[in-house]
Amino acid sequence: MSMVYQRVALIGLGLIASSMAHAMRQHGLVGQIVGYAKSPETRAAARELFCDKVCDTAAEAVQGADLVLFCVPVGAMGPLAAEIADHLAPGATVTDVGSVKAAVVEAIAPHIPQGVHFIPGHPLAGTEYSGPRSGFATLFQNRWWLLTPLAETDAGALLRLRNLLQGIGANVEEMEIEHHDLVLAVVSHTPHLIAYTMVGVADHMRRVSQQEVIKYSASGFRDFTRIAASDPTMWRDVFLTNKDAVLDILGRFAEELFVLQRAIRMGDGEQLHAYFTRTRAIRRGIIEAGQDTSAPDFGRASPAAGGGKEDKR
Amino acid sequence: MSMVYQRVALIGLGLIASSMAHAMRQHGLVGQIVGYAKSPETRAAARELFCDKVCDTAAEAVQGADLVLFCVPVGAMGPLAAEIADHLAPGATVTDVGSVKAAVVEAIAPHIPQGVHFIPGHPLAGTEYSGPRSGFATLFQNRWWLLTPLAETDAGALLRLRNLLQGIGANVEEMEIEHHDLVLAVVSHTPHLIAYTMVGVADHMRRVSQQEVIKYSASGFRDFTRIAASDPTMWRDVFLTNKDAVLDILGRFAEELFVLQRAIRMGDGEQLHAYFTRTRAIRRGIIEAGQDTSAPDFGRASPAAGGGKEDKR
Repeated sequence: MSMVYQRVALIGLGLIASSMAHAMRQHGLVGQIVGYAKSPETRAAARELFCDKVCDTAAEAVQGADLVLFCVPVGAMGPLAAEIADHLAPGATVTDVGSVKAAVVEAIAPHIPQGVHFIPGHPLAGTEYSGPRSGFATLFQNRWWLLTPLAETDAGALLRLRNLLQGIGANVEEMEIEHHDLVLAVVSHTPHLIAYTMVGVADHMRRVSQQEVIKYSASGFRDFTRIAASDPTMWRDVFLTNKDAVLDILGRFAEELFVLQRAIRMGDGEQLHAYFTRTRAIRRGIIEAGQDTSAPDFGRASPAAGGGKEDKR
Repeated sequence: MSMVYQRVALIGLGLIASSMAHAMRQHGLVGQIVGYAKSPETRAAARELFCDKVCDTAAEAVQGADLVLFCVPVGAMGPLAAEIADHLAPGATVTDVGSVKAAVVEAIAPHIPQGVHFIPGHPLAGTEYSGPRSGFATLFQNRWWLLTPLAETDAGALLRLRNLLQGIGANVEEMEIEHHDLVLAVVSHTPHLIAYTMVGVADHMRRVSQQEVIKYSASGFRDFTRIAASDPTMWRDVFLTNKDAVLDILGRFAEELFVLQRAIRMGDGEQLHAYFTRTRAIRRGIIEAGQDTSAPDFGRASPAAGGGKEDKR
């Protein structure tokens, strides 16, 4: 694949930025990778692992870059955008990887000077790990990368960014900003909050020791702890900045939960059975869409069981 | 390994029974495997796949068996126990695999004749699949199998059953009946109900299509759909028979969720961050206890990423 950008500036050097760096380099898509992060430890790790150059300020990092990638928690984007505004090269593209899009546009767009292209984005990829040592080149392989272009977005700049993202293996889709935030509240943000809550409940139980919770987590709870182990700062910012959509979905969730809770209290087996039967259909759709494995035991069984292959895509 | 039981009767021939049959046979732990299931289709599949003999009634299946294994939903156990009571061989052991123990003891124990040993049990293993074709021999490998013996349980019979379960690779632990039901309400039953609920909410959304939910499920929601795809009849019975413990935990869950919901509404980032930081510790404990992999991306990334090995135990 040929080079898409000459010089990429990574603002923030955690899981997503380090994975981007490894992926762009592996596919020969960029010339130079320059980085900035707040913490000196992170900067040192990035220098050692995946950056050609690491700067002590964001303003210095973006100088001469034709692509600037914001890879910091949503809450940190506004101040950083203000900081770099005067140092952006004419014709450069600025994008971000925030999980919320309306709030990011509000924070970044006002600082973008005439002649610089701002294209908000969001890769649906991640792990429970964070930091500059957690990245790997295949993180975005076959994952969605949503772009939410603004009305005034330049078609050429958009195409160029798409080329980069497709080059690292992502499936790029465009989406309307408000709709993105609602969809993500359903498929990601609210599930995360619920997982955090359930893990918190287990942590507070007096009659069940934490030792027991850990020991017997195999069925059900284990998946919650994986979700609830994600980066606290990133998730705090997601909930604070996608407040309306999350509160909307949480309200619906509480209603449904109370209906099921009442069915349990009343012993209404028919209602429970009908509900549990409907939810199976969505799962089947996800497997058919190739978003997950159909291996038994969620692919966790030993390979001898025929369940060891996690990903059948 | 040498033979532990001469003749095992499997009552119910779904995921757990078929996995037991494959495992017991593979390790040479039993002589003959006899089965019974309500549905003729299931009986035919079991005859073809893993049973030496399949009977049309449970009473016939248990005749001459020195181990009888109840592998049916909790709600079906009482009537079946009444049906087989007069046909149990003296000295036989009766056990079950129900996810709830107090209700099972209440349903089965009154029917067990003098001289037959009833030892309630519960393997913490399963997949989202069900039926006689879903079983595999390694399902119980390194998984917990909890036994909740009664005060009068015969020590010799208990040891013999432990030998069988350890023989198929399970880690056997004994637990008090009420405590079992509370622990499971925390680590399994309530998480399942919550996952069912979240999947139901997504299903009901008008502004987000089911197509979108499926397409973008990668982060967070996918784990919920896996949990929510489990057998509806089994789970209906779990909630109806472990009602008190589940309602207790659900009440706590709703309280905690409202606290976090309020923090979001009020914009209290500190509280959210502190909460999300605490939940990470439990996750670390689970990885250290060997209950899950620490591979990035939950072990779903391609092997090239170093994350392809799901299970590091």
